[in-house]
Amino acid sequence: MKKTTTRQKVMDVACRQFFLKGYHGTSVRDIAGEAAVNVSLISYYFTNKQGLLETLIIDYYEDYIDLIEQQTEALDELEPIDRLCRLIEVILHYKQDRHQLTCLIQRELSLDNQFVREMLVTYLSKENHLLYALFQQVVTPVVKEKRDTKFLFLQFKGMLQAPYAMPHDWKDFVTFDQSHSYFAQQYSRTVKKWVKMLCAQSVISV
Amino acid sequence: MKKTTTRQKVMDVACRQFFLKGYHGTSVRDIAGEAAVNVSLISYYFTNKQGLLETLIIDYYEDYIDLIEQQTEALDELEPIDRLCRLIEVILHYKQDRHQLTCLIQRELSLDNQFVREMLVTYLSKENHLLYALFQQVVTPVVKEKRDTKFLFLQFKGMLQAPYAMPHDWKDFVTFDQSHSYFAQQYSRTVKKWVKMLCAQSVISV
Repeated sequence: MKKTTTRQKVMDVACRQFFLKGYHGTSVRDIAGEAAVNVSLISYYFTNKQGLLETLIIDYYEDYIDLIEQQTEALDELEPIDRLCRLIEVILHYKQDRHQLTCLIQRELSLDNQFVREMLVTYLSKENHLLYALFQQVVTPVVKEKRDTKFLFLQFKGMLQAPYAMPHDWKDFVTFDQSHSYFAQQYSRTVKKWVKMLCAQSVISV
Repeated sequence: MKKTTTRQKVMDVACRQFFLKGYHGTSVRDIAGEAAVNVSLISYYFTNKQGLLETLIIDYYEDYIDLIEQQTEALDELEPIDRLCRLIEVILHYKQDRHQLTCLIQRELSLDNQFVREMLVTYLSKENHLLYALFQQVVTPVVKEKRDTKFLFLQFKGMLQAPYAMPHDWKDFVTFDQSHSYFAQQYSRTVKKWVKMLCAQSVISV
């Protein structure tokens, strides 16, 4: 039990420090210091700083993909649009609950290195595959050209990422600090409205 | 003339290397090597690597804010919604023309340091101020609560940032490489449609 706790503590400290100072601006020594553990313990659990970052990102995506898969299955009887709306809510709560980690992962995955390429062909392509399949079901009846669905999907992903792309830009504007869960709830309402608007539009144009 | 050319060449090389390998993954020596200039010349123009990054970001935002101000003024006679649509187009073309720089700036400004805080109180708050003023004019008639306008604005900024937040995630999905200008044109169409949809929605609900 103690082992897991220490390991988790190191991960929490690393997450906060990477978020604030960036991966390169943080040393293993900084992390060990704040977590009050010996540097050698970090080597034992994660090999090195890169291993620590990778563990954070992989854990995040493992749970994230699981969540999307579970939800997609659990909501099988609902209409596609209701399934998508429910998924928006679940995704934004997941991201917001891990606010700093979400921000720092978006930042690190904007680089181009071996690890990022591995993440792209595993988790990110899986996320896109799962979300896009559902998104297409909802949006295809609305659009004329296949290409438009792709652009709308880009827009959709942009909405899900928006609060985490430049977090300090939003700190005072939307009340992040007040309550994370409140923010996720309110913001997912806005994104869900967009989806409904898109579909209503189809009814109008028909 | 030669001076400016060398300076610009160093900036172009730095931009590409920072984009691909990250600010910390790039050394002044790497940049000097690819730009085929002496390291001392980089010190002469930019003091150090941090100075080079800051010059890139400040130049970018100086032109960007100028552009928004000019457009806002030039389009004064248009209806707010048409002004906003025109602005979306201009902003996305600006961002896309400087694709790598846009990506790397979004990444660097997600950190929390002295320079980022300075950028937040100068350029970013100015950008938000200018865009939000116009956005409010367009959207306020549509929404009931002031808070909703803020969430819609977050959504809106998310759309403008989407292609640059995790660029590698989009490389194959939307055809970035085919033509930057074509992409900007097509994607701005999608964002403009969203704005128009929002406003049409108000007509419906009235």
